[in-house]
Amino acid sequence: MKCYFDHVATNPLDPRVFEAMLPYFKEEFGNPQSVYDLGVRAKEAIEKAREQVASLINCKPSEIIFTSSGAESNNFALRGIALARQNEGRHVLVSKVEHHSILNSARFLEKNGFTVTFLPVDKYGMVDPDTVKKSITKETTLISIIHASSEVGTIQPVKEIARIAKEHNIVFHTDAVASTGNIHVDVRELGIDLLSMAAHQFYGPKGAAALYVREGLRIVPLIYGGIQEGGRRAGTENVPAIVGMGVAAELARNELAQRMAHVKKLRDRLVSEITSRVENIYYTGHPAERLPGHASFCVEYIEGEAMLLMLAAKGIYGASGSACSSKALKASPILLSMGIPAQLAQGSVVFSLGKDNTDEEIDYFINEFPQIIKRLREISPYQKGWQEAGSPACKPE
Amino acid sequence: MKCYFDHVATNPLDPRVFEAMLPYFKEEFGNPQSVYDLGVRAKEAIEKAREQVASLINCKPSEIIFTSSGAESNNFALRGIALARQNEGRHVLVSKVEHHSILNSARFLEKNGFTVTFLPVDKYGMVDPDTVKKSITKETTLISIIHASSEVGTIQPVKEIARIAKEHNIVFHTDAVASTGNIHVDVRELGIDLLSMAAHQFYGPKGAAALYVREGLRIVPLIYGGIQEGGRRAGTENVPAIVGMGVAAELARNELAQRMAHVKKLRDRLVSEITSRVENIYYTGHPAERLPGHASFCVEYIEGEAMLLMLAAKGIYGASGSACSSKALKASPILLSMGIPAQLAQGSVVFSLGKDNTDEEIDYFINEFPQIIKRLREISPYQKGWQEAGSPACKPE
Repeated sequence: MKCYFDHVATNPLDPRVFEAMLPYFKEEFGNPQSVYDLGVRAKEAIEKAREQVASLINCKPSEIIFTSSGAESNNFALRGIALARQNEGRHVLVSKVEHHSILNSARFLEKNGFTVTFLPVDKYGMVDPDTVKKSITKETTLISIIHASSEVGTIQPVKEIARIAKEHNIVFHTDAVASTGNIHVDVRELGIDLLSMAAHQFYGPKGAAALYVREGLRIVPLIYGGIQEGGRRAGTENVPAIVGMGVAAELARNELAQRMAHVKKLRDRLVSEITSRVENIYYTGHPAERLPGHASFCVEYIEGEAMLLMLAAKGIYGASGSACSSKALKASPILLSMGIPAQLAQGSVVFSLGKDNTDEEIDYFINEFPQIIKRLREISPYQKGWQEAGSPACKPE
Repeated sequence: MKCYFDHVATNPLDPRVFEAMLPYFKEEFGNPQSVYDLGVRAKEAIEKAREQVASLINCKPSEIIFTSSGAESNNFALRGIALARQNEGRHVLVSKVEHHSILNSARFLEKNGFTVTFLPVDKYGMVDPDTVKKSITKETTLISIIHASSEVGTIQPVKEIARIAKEHNIVFHTDAVASTGNIHVDVRELGIDLLSMAAHQFYGPKGAAALYVREGLRIVPLIYGGIQEGGRRAGTENVPAIVGMGVAAELARNELAQRMAHVKKLRDRLVSEITSRVENIYYTGHPAERLPGHASFCVEYIEGEAMLLMLAAKGIYGASGSACSSKALKASPILLSMGIPAQLAQGSVVFSLGKDNTDEEIDYFINEFPQIIKRLREISPYQKGWQEAGSPACKPE
C-alpha cells in the first residue's frame, strides 16, 4: 500500500486541474503579450485565473501578482517592501519559525543596511502578539509572520499581529504557502497587506505561485523587465501553470470545508493511535491551533532520516523538518527555537494528509509505524548515549 | 491558413517534449528534496535535464542553474554579479539594445550606487568591440551584451567582447534567450562567463529557463531560501517544466543544423519577395550576422499594431518591437538607438520562423502581405503628414 502523507512537501496535481491546463500546452501556446487572438486568449486565461485566485483569499484580482514559487513570493514581499519603505525606516520583524526564504531574505537585508529582529516562539512554535508589539521601534516598516508552519502545523495569531502592525503604520506580510487552499484564508478579515501562496500546496501545478499585495501599496520588483503583471513581475507568463493555479484555487474554495473535515478526522485518528501505541513520542506544534491534516512528532532515540527511509520502504511517505532542508541533516532550527533539545529534534517526523488519503491508509500506517520505531530503536546508536546523558530537560508536552 | 511567424514571442511546445513531461504531472509528482524514492526520482529527472541543457551549450551540468524565465536569469546575472563583485568596483557595461530585463536591472543598479554605461550600436544594431574596450574603467566588473536581438535579429560579436572582458578581468554575461537552441552556442568557444536562456524559445515549456554560471564564479542569489540549485536559487523545482527543458535542449542539439537550414531558406525567400513586392520597406538589423529564421522590417507610412491586427485577421502572426513591449505602443528604443526615425520605427514588424513553418505558408504570406500594406497605406493617417515633412533623413539600408 502507498500512503502519501507528505502534502507539506508537495501535492499531487488534481487531474481536473491538469485537464484545464492541457490546451495551453497545445494549440493555445500564445504569448499573453501578443496583440493577436492567440495572445489575447492566453491573456484572458491568465486574467480568469487571477479572479479565481483572488476569490480564494477574498481580494481583488488586481491585488494578485503571479510568481514562480512561494520562495519567490516571500523574497519579493520582504525585500520589495523593505526597499520601498527604506526612507521611512530600516527595521524589519520576522519570527524564528519562518521558512528559509524569509529567514535568508532577512539575512540579505541585514547585510544591506537593515536591522532585523527574529522573534522567539513558545513551546508550540507560536509567536506572542505582545512580543511583536514590544519589538516595534520607530524604524520598523515591515512585519512578516508565517501563517501556518509546514513543520509543526501551528497557525499563528496573524489577525492580532496584523492589527498591531496597522496601529503602528507598519506593513504586514504573511507567508501563507502552507495554509492557503488548506484552511480558510481571508485577507480582508485578517487585515493582511501581503500574502504569499503556492499552487502546488493545494493540488495545483509546481511553477505557479502568487503574492497578494494590498491595493495602493508600493513594492519594488524582484524581477525587472517587461510590462507583465502590471510591471511588477517580469518574465513570459507560465500560462498553463497559471491556468492550473486558478482552477486549483476554485476547487479548493468550493471543497474547502469537506477537505478540512476529511483530513482532520484522519489526522486525529493517526495522532491518537500513534501516541498511544508508541512510547516516548512527542506531538509537536500547537495541539489545537494547527493545520487540520498536519501531525508532527519527535520520536525519542531515533534519527529522522532513517525513519523516513524505513517508512518509505513500506510505502509510507513523510517528512523530517522542512521539505527544503530535509536533506541538510541538521536539527531543525524551528524545533530548536521551540525549546526542543537538539537530539530529540533529530527524531522529527511530519505526516501531512491530503484530500485523497483514506481510512485504509491510516489503518495500514498505525499498524506499520510502531513496528518500524521498535526496529529502529533496537539498532539506534542514540539510545545508549541518551540514557547515559539522562532524559532531555525540556520536552514538548 | 495559419502562419505562426512569431517565434521570438514564444514557440509552440514540441509534442515530444510534452510527452516527456507527462509523468511528472501524474504519478511522478514528488518534491526533489524529499529523501524517499518519489523524491529521488524527481531529483534524478532534474539532474538528467541539467546534463541535457549543459550539452546544448557545452558546459558542465554543475554550471547550470534552473530559473523560471529568461527575465529571471537576466536579473539574477546582472544583479548577482554586480553585488558579488561590488568591493572590486561598481561600474557595469551594457548595450542600448538589451532586453528590458537587462536595461531595467541596470537602472536598478544605478539607483543603488552603481554606474552603468549604455553602449551605442551602429545602424545594424551591432555593438562595436572597440567601443566596449574604450568604455572600460578601473571600476568595471561586469559587461552584459545580448547575444542575438529578438527585435532585429542581429548577432553580436560576443566572442570578441568576451575576450576583451577577460583581458581586463571583467565578468562577461550574455543574454542568449533568443539564440540558444536556435543557433550554435558554445560557451567555451565563445569564452562566456554567464549566459541566460529560456526553454520556450526552443520548443520547450514556459516556466523553465536557466542561467549558466562558469565554475568558480561567485554570484549572489536573487531568490533566497532552501538548498535547491546548490543554494543559489530557492523554490520548489518546477519538475515537469525542467524535464521538458532538458528534452527540448536535446532535440535542439540533435536537429540544430537541419532546423537552421530550414528556417534560413524560408526566411531568405520571405525577405527577397517582400522587399521586391512592397515599396518603401526597410529590412532592419544586420543583413548577414543575424538569426537564421528572423526577418524584421520597418514599413513606411504604417503603424505596427494596425499591421499586426490586419495580418492576424488573415491568420498571419508577427510581432512589432519586442514581445514584452508590443502592447506599450511606443517606438522601440532599440530601433531608435539604431538611428531609425521615430515615425518609421512605428512601422516595425518582425517575422520569426520556426521548424514547423512551410513553403506553402511563405507562399500565402508573400501574396497577402503586399495587399495588406496597400490597404493600410490607403487609410494611413501618417502618409500625408510624412510626405509634407519629407522623407526621414536617416533610413536603414
